[in-house]
Amino acid sequence: MDVPVVYQIALDAMGGDFAPVALLEGARAALEAHEDLFLHLVGDEARLRPLLAAAGLKGDLVSRFAIVHAASVVTMDDKATCILKEKKDSSIRVAAKMVRDGRAHGVVSMGHTGAAMVASKMVIGTLPGVDRPCLATVLPNMSGVPTVLLDVGANIDCRPEHIAQFAVMGSIYAEEVLGIKRPRVGVLSVGEEEGKGSATTREAAQSLRDMDLNFLGNAEGRDLWNDKFDVIACDGFVGNALLKSAESLAEGLFGGLKAVFLENVFTKLGALLARPALKRFAKKLDYEEYGGAPLLGVKGISIIGHGRSNARAVNSAIRAALVACEHQVNDRIQESLGRLMSQAEPQQTP
Amino acid sequence: MDVPVVYQIALDAMGGDFAPVALLEGARAALEAHEDLFLHLVGDEARLRPLLAAAGLKGDLVSRFAIVHAASVVTMDDKATCILKEKKDSSIRVAAKMVRDGRAHGVVSMGHTGAAMVASKMVIGTLPGVDRPCLATVLPNMSGVPTVLLDVGANIDCRPEHIAQFAVMGSIYAEEVLGIKRPRVGVLSVGEEEGKGSATTREAAQSLRDMDLNFLGNAEGRDLWNDKFDVIACDGFVGNALLKSAESLAEGLFGGLKAVFLENVFTKLGALLARPALKRFAKKLDYEEYGGAPLLGVKGISIIGHGRSNARAVNSAIRAALVACEHQVNDRIQESLGRLMSQAEPQQTP
Repeated sequence: MDVPVVYQIALDAMGGDFAPVALLEGARAALEAHEDLFLHLVGDEARLRPLLAAAGLKGDLVSRFAIVHAASVVTMDDKATCILKEKKDSSIRVAAKMVRDGRAHGVVSMGHTGAAMVASKMVIGTLPGVDRPCLATVLPNMSGVPTVLLDVGANIDCRPEHIAQFAVMGSIYAEEVLGIKRPRVGVLSVGEEEGKGSATTREAAQSLRDMDLNFLGNAEGRDLWNDKFDVIACDGFVGNALLKSAESLAEGLFGGLKAVFLENVFTKLGALLARPALKRFAKKLDYEEYGGAPLLGVKGISIIGHGRSNARAVNSAIRAALVACEHQVNDRIQESLGRLMSQAEPQQTP
Repeated sequence: MDVPVVYQIALDAMGGDFAPVALLEGARAALEAHEDLFLHLVGDEARLRPLLAAAGLKGDLVSRFAIVHAASVVTMDDKATCILKEKKDSSIRVAAKMVRDGRAHGVVSMGHTGAAMVASKMVIGTLPGVDRPCLATVLPNMSGVPTVLLDVGANIDCRPEHIAQFAVMGSIYAEEVLGIKRPRVGVLSVGEEEGKGSATTREAAQSLRDMDLNFLGNAEGRDLWNDKFDVIACDGFVGNALLKSAESLAEGLFGGLKAVFLENVFTKLGALLARPALKRFAKKLDYEEYGGAPLLGVKGISIIGHGRSNARAVNSAIRAALVACEHQVNDRIQESLGRLMSQAEPQQTP
């Protein structure tokens, strides 16, 4: 008889604008959707326990989750590094420690992004061969095939080898988790031509050309949305600005459109007629569908979500963690990174 | 009797995907709209002359334009620096030279962006006190008050003082050309807090804090679209990526929306009903309305437009050049830049 594999995920139940309720509701949806999931709900037990039943965490599900007590929570006013000293008992640190101690395969947090990154890097630790973990995001586009953009904020100043590593980790993630064969990889620059870009991006591109990767060269800002690349690597400063700009622009456009359709009786009728088609359109571009951003390169799965995540986004983030576990993304990164990066190094002559 | 002021603009009539026809049609529209405009149409006389009448450049307008012959044109396959050697007789260089020689107040080009920048910087030259000219773009948003983003591609690697200068030039442009009083100025970073960002952006922000400017501190990617800042300064690498991403995302969304409304008879009827409201909405976000991007900091007006500009965009770009002339943007930059930048320098103790 096969013993079924169960993946243990530690959920920071106290992190996020709508915590803990949205976290518990998302947990319930994830448990219902995935039989191979066991959730550790990390947070203030006295606050969490009375909310369980209302969130639907009852009945058969009771055997597939547990509360793990954590006395404090990192707030938006805290520094990211507070988890190393003042808030060692915070929910995000306790959750990360479960991964370090082998009691969970991954951690999911919608709380303070910086604190979640510090917890992942310092408490869980980085994979051998990885210089710097990086935050990846999955951008939906019209074609229906999403593009992985990384780093979107974990590393502000980057050397060429860091950007090359991000590209390699992104390629593995796109292949394993998104199921894209031979992902088309690019380095973000200001023009397609090989000579365009900064000294850093040119050097990163040069080392990627030497590797056994489907590397297409320089990508531009427009390539985030036109299905020419599956993976685009850049430093965390640029990636963060691009992600925040895109979110805000898309929100503004959809918000403006909604207002247009509420203008008068004709537009309202128009909206009613186009509604099913508009819904299908919006679904294509649905960020919540892709859940949180994986922090790639740590010794365990770490998914970091938006502070304003609702139950559905929490569910998606847990699913992203689960898929990363199932596909052994970390083993693949560890196995491939060293091999590929060594291809980029200049050959020693005897 | 007052002699009316006439502004002389040199138009690179051969640059752009739809040159020369769209250029000539845009020129005609601009001449009709602005009585204080005289246009020098720079390009291959043998090609241009037969097209004039068809573009409407006839009748009364004949006294307000002239053809200036240029034997060659910079193509997309050329290097930007070709205008310094192989293509000294190219339309963009001949147009820029007219500004240098005092025969035109400004130059407008929709051709090779790099060549137009090199021509402006090297042939026209930079204003005293300006370390590096920068390309500014005007981003429309829902609120109807546009945001100036700069640099969007003229300078890839920047030092803190360059970014501070971009911010100052952007503030003057927003005030003079867009009519925004005490423009709200920010430096692009990865978080609002003062400590966030790279060493370069933190230092740029620090020197802007010392100046007599309405400086609000760090801006984030989302602030390009939410009317919290009127001017956002960054290096040309980030700005270029942000601009190209936004253009592509907005185009994709509008394109997708158009497809939605063509899906079936119900959606088509819906679109018909909502049409006037949708048109007003699209108008708010209309890039063509703002014309080309001004290259700020050169000794003369230089407006650089999209290669794919149609006649309307050409007209807008010429209008942008005209407004910059009328408001003496360069005099203001020259006057203010030295004064403001000196405020940022550490005081000498006696």
